[in-house]
Amino acid sequence: MRMALELASQATMATSPNPKVGCLIVKDGQILGKGCTQAVGQAHAEVMALRDAANRGHDVRGATAYVTLEPCSHFGRTPPCANALVEAKLARVVAAIKDANPQVAGRGLLILQNAGMQVEVGLYADEARELNRGFFQRMETGRPWVRLKMAASLDGLTALPNGQSQWITDATARLDGHHWRAKADVILTGIGTVLSDDPQLTVRLPDLAVDQVHQPRKVIVDSALRTPLQAKILQQTPVTIFHASNDADKIASMQQAGIELHHAAAPMPERNPRVDIEKVLEILGQQQVNDVHIEAGATLSGAFLQANRVDELLLYLAPKLLGRGRSMFDLPVLHSVSEAKILAIHELRQIGEAIRVIARWQK
Amino acid sequence: MRMALELASQATMATSPNPKVGCLIVKDGQILGKGCTQAVGQAHAEVMALRDAANRGHDVRGATAYVTLEPCSHFGRTPPCANALVEAKLARVVAAIKDANPQVAGRGLLILQNAGMQVEVGLYADEARELNRGFFQRMETGRPWVRLKMAASLDGLTALPNGQSQWITDATARLDGHHWRAKADVILTGIGTVLSDDPQLTVRLPDLAVDQVHQPRKVIVDSALRTPLQAKILQQTPVTIFHASNDADKIASMQQAGIELHHAAAPMPERNPRVDIEKVLEILGQQQVNDVHIEAGATLSGAFLQANRVDELLLYLAPKLLGRGRSMFDLPVLHSVSEAKILAIHELRQIGEAIRVIARWQK
Repeated sequence: MRMALELASQATMATSPNPKVGCLIVKDGQILGKGCTQAVGQAHAEVMALRDAANRGHDVRGATAYVTLEPCSHFGRTPPCANALVEAKLARVVAAIKDANPQVAGRGLLILQNAGMQVEVGLYADEARELNRGFFQRMETGRPWVRLKMAASLDGLTALPNGQSQWITDATARLDGHHWRAKADVILTGIGTVLSDDPQLTVRLPDLAVDQVHQPRKVIVDSALRTPLQAKILQQTPVTIFHASNDADKIASMQQAGIELHHAAAPMPERNPRVDIEKVLEILGQQQVNDVHIEAGATLSGAFLQANRVDELLLYLAPKLLGRGRSMFDLPVLHSVSEAKILAIHELRQIGEAIRVIARWQK
Repeated sequence: MRMALELASQATMATSPNPKVGCLIVKDGQILGKGCTQAVGQAHAEVMALRDAANRGHDVRGATAYVTLEPCSHFGRTPPCANALVEAKLARVVAAIKDANPQVAGRGLLILQNAGMQVEVGLYADEARELNRGFFQRMETGRPWVRLKMAASLDGLTALPNGQSQWITDATARLDGHHWRAKADVILTGIGTVLSDDPQLTVRLPDLAVDQVHQPRKVIVDSALRTPLQAKILQQTPVTIFHASNDADKIASMQQAGIELHHAAAPMPERNPRVDIEKVLEILGQQQVNDVHIEAGATLSGAFLQANRVDELLLYLAPKLLGRGRSMFDLPVLHSVSEAKILAIHELRQIGEAIRVIARWQK
């Protein structure tokens, strides 16, 4: 199963919204075939492993399949994998974890059992879930997994009093950040960052042109539709803007520019209507987005934290001291330390000269 | 030499101002004796190792001594160790590093060479220096090694806007902090901390009474002599206060209370005279202090940083977000990130739930 997890982790970024799965077919201690999920609409891991075994001239009858997720049972973009395993006359299937997709959720295992196959579930279940955190979260809650990235000095400041923030982290940490961008389905930012930094938010990796890399969709939270049409982030498609504006002219001109707009105002009517974070995540979930990567300023980042809608904090701390400047998150003033939001350190390491902290939310 | 370094690291905290040294006497692959520096005024490592060999009935003539520091050559509180090794008729001495003490500085090695012994220096020199960083720093610069401890939330805040800071870090991190206090010769704080927190700054370790533990001397930087005589930190002796006051009554009452006072005003005459950090460290160096441990607020900590007189930052980051509050260090406003003070991460690890960063100054 460890090898199958390894195969799954090698799957392309382009499987989304499908989970990344790995499959190994084994008989008498010999590996007959292996495979992982292909780009969306193409073959799943089980089919790839069966094809691999056939190409190598192996007879898979009576073999065992190790698969990192319950084989699918439904006709989606591809025929059900459970049926393919039955037709191939395998004797046994070991799945790491049940599929959380309500269209599967045990039915794949049932197909196998009804066909007389020996079925086991649960081996390395935590690792299998971790590999597809966003997919499981979306299946279970309807919302994508939200990772919030922030870079600061060792004394916790993200910019000088004059607003300057380039560059607090060094090139190594910034490159690491690009790898995390590449893993997401959506890169989300706020209007404050668009107006002050005019970022591209593309994935830029060494020796690869921008169009050779999977570029996640960009999403802007922009309540009053203030994004300038000449903003760098709009020079790529597709871009989605969540807003709370009723300005028909602005809406029309943005739609003409090819921008996908969603009106997602908070339910409380206000003088200055604001985008509702719950609605943003609900709509992204409906659009089958598994993983959201936020790179925004203190205001929007603070709003996601305050809504308890950050699952993972990705924090780079550069070994510099700035003394005075902007702090990381705009959050309401606390009156007691015991009211503070508590996280748990998930991973801690040095990336070049900087410290990288991955912390997860204690809910 | 690795074993000798291990022996040295086991030496009592009470060797200061002497360095911690380990010594191993070896002949034909057999360890004849071992020792480490005893409390100040008592035997050094070499003498302890010779005694150990004698106690075990070994003949050390022709043996090799591995010692983590050049054997001393002068009559200080104890007779010179170099002479003791010569008298014991050893054949060879391997020293990790030359002594930085100008009273020794190669003279110990010369005594050995003049007696016809084979002498080598430099094996594990970096490790040997690291073990006695404060001693080497004082010998080379006249100033002690300065460690600055700070505890903050993950978003870099040390207290809420209302001043509350108890407890940002958990008990595990706080206990770790007590171990670092115990390693110092002096615990230094500022009047701001004394007035706002009234701390004891004692070393408190589990299952040990406060008087069973080595309690470093307390030092307060208090320009205007505002420390109340009933402050908890004064309820222990000895306490030293560095001040810039000319108030004869205050000075007299504090001296009557048994407090050691040093007038250390900054050279520039000001309306409100301030203590000069250079003078504080110069005086502490003259008092043979090797290691200073600072636990103070943003003002005094910032002043030490600004004076470039922090050698090591010991930072605890608790996995909490406070959003708004006090930042770590009061430093002058920067106009460009490139002006920031740069450190290098020396060690990074998790202590309980918190992150512990040890960073050293890039000078």
